[in-house]
Amino acid sequence: MLGIQNNLFWLVPGTAIIALGFAWFFFKQMMKNSEGTPKMAEIAAHVRKGAMAYLKQQYKIVIIVFIVLTLLFALMAYVWKVQNPWVPFAFLSGGFFSGLAGFFGMKTATYASARTANAARESLNKGLQVAFRSGAVMGLVVVGLALLDISIWYIVLNTFVKGGDPAHNMAIITTTMLTFGMGASTQALFARVGGGIFTKAADVGADLVGKVEAGIPEDDPRNPATIADNVGDNVGDVAGMGADLYESYAGSILATAALGAAAFMHDTTMQVSAVFAPMIIGAVGTLLSIIGIFAVRTKENATQKNLLSALGRGINLSSVLIMVLSFFILKILNLENYVGVWLSIVIGLITGWAIGKETEYFTSAAYKPTQNIAKQSETGPATVIINGIGTGMLSTAFPVMTIVVGTILAYLTSAGWNFENMSMGLYGIGIAAVGMLSTLGITLATDAYGPIADNAGGNAEMAGLGEEVRNRTDALDSLGNTTAATGKGFAIGSAALTALALLASYIEEIKIGLIRIGETTLIVGEKVIPTVTATLSDFMTYYNVTLMNPKVLMGMFIGAMMAFMFCGLTMNAVGRAAGAMVDEVRRQFRDIKGILTGETEPDYAACVAISTKGAQREMLLPSLLAIIAPVTVGLIFGVSGVMGLLTGGLAAGFALAIFMANSGGSWDNAKKYIESGAHGGKGSKAHEAAVIGDTVGDPFKDTSGPSLNILIKLMTMVAIVMAGLTASWSLM
Amino acid sequence: MLGIQNNLFWLVPGTAIIALGFAWFFFKQMMKNSEGTPKMAEIAAHVRKGAMAYLKQQYKIVIIVFIVLTLLFALMAYVWKVQNPWVPFAFLSGGFFSGLAGFFGMKTATYASARTANAARESLNKGLQVAFRSGAVMGLVVVGLALLDISIWYIVLNTFVKGGDPAHNMAIITTTMLTFGMGASTQALFARVGGGIFTKAADVGADLVGKVEAGIPEDDPRNPATIADNVGDNVGDVAGMGADLYESYAGSILATAALGAAAFMHDTTMQVSAVFAPMIIGAVGTLLSIIGIFAVRTKENATQKNLLSALGRGINLSSVLIMVLSFFILKILNLENYVGVWLSIVIGLITGWAIGKETEYFTSAAYKPTQNIAKQSETGPATVIINGIGTGMLSTAFPVMTIVVGTILAYLTSAGWNFENMSMGLYGIGIAAVGMLSTLGITLATDAYGPIADNAGGNAEMAGLGEEVRNRTDALDSLGNTTAATGKGFAIGSAALTALALLASYIEEIKIGLIRIGETTLIVGEKVIPTVTATLSDFMTYYNVTLMNPKVLMGMFIGAMMAFMFCGLTMNAVGRAAGAMVDEVRRQFRDIKGILTGETEPDYAACVAISTKGAQREMLLPSLLAIIAPVTVGLIFGVSGVMGLLTGGLAAGFALAIFMANSGGSWDNAKKYIESGAHGGKGSKAHEAAVIGDTVGDPFKDTSGPSLNILIKLMTMVAIVMAGLTASWSLM
Repeated sequence: MLGIQNNLFWLVPGTAIIALGFAWFFFKQMMKNSEGTPKMAEIAAHVRKGAMAYLKQQYKIVIIVFIVLTLLFALMAYVWKVQNPWVPFAFLSGGFFSGLAGFFGMKTATYASARTANAARESLNKGLQVAFRSGAVMGLVVVGLALLDISIWYIVLNTFVKGGDPAHNMAIITTTMLTFGMGASTQALFARVGGGIFTKAADVGADLVGKVEAGIPEDDPRNPATIADNVGDNVGDVAGMGADLYESYAGSILATAALGAAAFMHDTTMQVSAVFAPMIIGAVGTLLSIIGIFAVRTKENATQKNLLSALGRGINLSSVLIMVLSFFILKILNLENYVGVWLSIVIGLITGWAIGKETEYFTSAAYKPTQNIAKQSETGPATVIINGIGTGMLSTAFPVMTIVVGTILAYLTSAGWNFENMSMGLYGIGIAAVGMLSTLGITLATDAYGPIADNAGGNAEMAGLGEEVRNRTDALDSLGNTTAATGKGFAIGSAALTALALLASYIEEIKIGLIRIGETTLIVGEKVIPTVTATLSDFMTYYNVTLMNPKVLMGMFIGAMMAFMFCGLTMNAVGRAAGAMVDEVRRQFRDIKGILTGETEPDYAACVAISTKGAQREMLLPSLLAIIAPVTVGLIFGVSGVMGLLTGGLAAGFALAIFMANSGGSWDNAKKYIESGAHGGKGSKAHEAAVIGDTVGDPFKDTSGPSLNILIKLMTMVAIVMAGLTASWSLM
Repeated sequence: MLGIQNNLFWLVPGTAIIALGFAWFFFKQMMKNSEGTPKMAEIAAHVRKGAMAYLKQQYKIVIIVFIVLTLLFALMAYVWKVQNPWVPFAFLSGGFFSGLAGFFGMKTATYASARTANAARESLNKGLQVAFRSGAVMGLVVVGLALLDISIWYIVLNTFVKGGDPAHNMAIITTTMLTFGMGASTQALFARVGGGIFTKAADVGADLVGKVEAGIPEDDPRNPATIADNVGDNVGDVAGMGADLYESYAGSILATAALGAAAFMHDTTMQVSAVFAPMIIGAVGTLLSIIGIFAVRTKENATQKNLLSALGRGINLSSVLIMVLSFFILKILNLENYVGVWLSIVIGLITGWAIGKETEYFTSAAYKPTQNIAKQSETGPATVIINGIGTGMLSTAFPVMTIVVGTILAYLTSAGWNFENMSMGLYGIGIAAVGMLSTLGITLATDAYGPIADNAGGNAEMAGLGEEVRNRTDALDSLGNTTAATGKGFAIGSAALTALALLASYIEEIKIGLIRIGETTLIVGEKVIPTVTATLSDFMTYYNVTLMNPKVLMGMFIGAMMAFMFCGLTMNAVGRAAGAMVDEVRRQFRDIKGILTGETEPDYAACVAISTKGAQREMLLPSLLAIIAPVTVGLIFGVSGVMGLLTGGLAAGFALAIFMANSGGSWDNAKKYIESGAHGGKGSKAHEAAVIGDTVGDPFKDTSGPSLNILIKLMTMVAIVMAGLTASWSLM
């Protein structure tokens, strides 16, 4: 390691510790607040217990999957010798830290809900502070643990990977580190799929029997599924979203480091700079996020508009500062074409912002698309569904074109406007993803704020707090819905960009794999090229990764199909689990006397258990398919088939994820728009139609759509870890 | 031209004339039947007038689009000199013949409905004969006109393209002929999109006001939209389906001919055989279809099962015979590796059959998936929709895997199990598509039979025929639903395989384009290669059509997005047009006294006009986007971007099309299943939920889904015609 870069590197573990320290500080601060009345504390305890019980069950299954996979990786590393000996450990550490982040985040969220409701009894601002700072715990734990894991592995590998020339060592270090992403991906998969099924089984079940059949309002304590519904918000939106973004965050940094190592095999100093740049930008972005978090405050008599602009102020401050500082970071690192690379970072930040705005446009009731859907409710549920699906599909155009333009520009600016300069161009795509995610500390805080505010509203409703308090929690919740929509767009967009960066680094893994199994030369056309100096183009020719190769084309067909099949499996899983919930709620209404009159408390725990069991049973098949598909395609079709699979899955999965998230989001808000008085308001025929739209949208936006984020990243991660095996053997 | 091949070629124009002759014969035979009571004739006249009025409007718009495009192609051919001078004429002829086929098919169908109903008064068998023979008119007109157009152009070009070496001439002839496919594609686009919007605007509108609000049954003469609904079946299912398959049929033959010409540039005799093979197989398949059509007959006291097996017997006979005969055709043509190529044809036939069966499994109420959807209706419309979408998405796995396995095997058998033998492998994919479509004459007859039987049912209902007659027309209609589902699967599968063949021939067009603009050499790596002898791999390297090229990747993103956006636009178009229909029907019920009591006839023509206007207005934007996208991507990203666009669009569009068709089909049959008595039967809560599912499914299965078939072929066709321009200039 070298002078200035070496010193700057220590920013990364240092920031990790600072971030975790602030997370601890915010947690302690939040815990000082009172949970309010005994009733409020009791409800919160129900939700907390349910959430932890679910998490425990989920971890039990995840641990089995991890044991099996670790054994497989150990085989690959120690017996077949097609992978790095560090990989099983890197895999485990990624899964462990991601799980830890989910655990802390959810613990905090479940402690915060009653405290937020109680703080809202005092003032809106007080409520915002408690909820947002609790969300910040999640944000900082995620980035802190990711930076910690990255630092530890870099230090360990840098100590142990010796011999050979330094440039090659760096390539081994970065490609090994990349495999810890698969641990995070696997954990995220189960969190998103399991959490998504849990939350929507509870939500759909609660709505179908409670709202539609029994005619009682949402979050009514008489509904046995209402605690499960609140547990679901934590399980799906806090733990699931956190694990998803943990993976994107770590994945983008690690992929970019690997691409940087590959781009500068000829220049060790430059190589170290290129590898450190994404890590240091991540670290500095985290410090700026902490500053941004402190900037979020509003007046005591704040309106909802004030609240939104308070959150916006924090994010904007962090974003503008990272734009400025990243220029100096790159200049100090003295990276080749640092102005161009800096522009890639700026493009990444703008792309993320734009996709958030586009999502807001298509899902907020303040704009035409959602208002049109609401209007369709006058001709019944069928037209609401047709229009919601049509608009969701149409809306894919904007984020996709944004990513297309952003990616091409990020590539070109880093490549010095030369398409042939592929290694720098791909590095540019990676660092754009890093830029987009650099202030994740604060963007994730606003995301996690949403379900906390939502639960606070539920708590206030169930505890029977006064109307003024519920109006305040409603204002907080409504703000949460806006940030949730933007956050979903951001999560999808960053997943797509991260997946592109991971895809680009796949070939680096193949290269290292070939060297490991002793393939030191490649025959490309009529030339013999040493594997170690082979360029990306050489590999493309060697494996014939062109669009005329039927293996590539068929891989693409399978990839696109995977996205649809995965969605179909998760949709049907929600349907089945919700059916079980409906049966249980009906049973309780029938068998337990006095529930509907409020004399007897329903058996909340039974509903939580139903959702837990449903999620547990249903998450296994789609999850295993996502892991098995790239392995199988690799074993049959080899490298070219795998690349077809990944790109087909990415292109189709990205569009499908936007469609599902936006359709779901706009149905939700169309319903709320009608509830606010439009088209006949609550209780009208139009409202009934809109409720059906919202129910259909639930698994769209909270189960299948978000799970696709993981699918597109995970398939690439699996391919990366399996690269050594694929390089050494395939059927065709 | 040479001896035996030359003689065999004349089979093609000969068969074209025979097929058209039989079509004429069947038409005359059908016209001899009586239209029944004056009431029946009057209703049929209403429908016929409406259908023709719509078709006239559609052709008006299509003519404008054709004039603009022809001028553009004339510019390209005569001013910029980047295209063949024959292209504008080839384009026009393709459009003209496709339009003619639609016109004849629809004319026949609208004459046949009352005659079928009247024949059903006699016996079930008599009804089947009239309906099926009328469908056969459509089938034979489509294949006859396609073979005629192919023959004429081959004879003309073979006469005029002189000078240069014969192999190169053949390449010019086949690539020029390919461009007539774009005319057919453009015509098909408007037929599918316009027809699809028309039919579902009428259907959804009629259902929403008639069934749901006024509570009158389907096809009730009191519903003002009911004639429009019947017109829609002809416009969408007859004309649209016919144009779609005309395009696949011609496209697969022409693409395979172009691939054959490219594969044997070194051997003129073999080249002629390879070019003639797809044409001759098409011709012989048509003759066998005629034999199959005559084999469809059943006993006088036939049950529905007898009917289905009667249809199946005809198709199976033609298919088995073509399997056997194509072996001898290839042997006589003495084609290189003729056993392997023959296996590709067999694989194509089996693939088509398998996809049809899979579609039936996922959409027929005789199997689990649709029964499960029906069961979900007990918990309301939301769960019906969730389960229907989930199952539809899940169902994509089977047809996609079937196409994947079929394509790889068709490639490998023709390529002699050598992946490197790309030119023969791609020829194998093309000829598999030709094989799948070789008996289109009879498969399309069974498809067109569906809407004729449907309309016969409508006619019987509206004319107030006795219950026994209506039971017979219901039996005929129900059979039509089964063949319609299978036919839809077949149309999608053949579209995908045809699009793959077209994609493969795209590079041949680029090659001819490069030679035309004077680019006689290519620099590939460090070598200089004459363009005329450059291989597919050379072109892939030259244009860097690899999955690491951001232009390819971004093209794929845009392609996948195009499929979703196109679907979104057509879904919303149906929503809007149906809304206008709802308003009109409500107005008539309100303003025209005595409609609901049956004293006054409603204003049917006004509803037809509404659907016509809606379809006309709404079809333009999606259609133009489908044409403009490949042009724009070509101008900006060049050849590599276009190939990304086409493959991304194909992979995502194929899966999306299956999802939409199968979800829609199973909702339809789930509803019918409940109407047959399950889950409470007609009038129950469950039935109401199932009706909502069916209404949502209408645009899924009859507008957006089928339109995607065209999109995936048309984008490739546009790229092919634009190849000269793309080869000569692009921004990046």
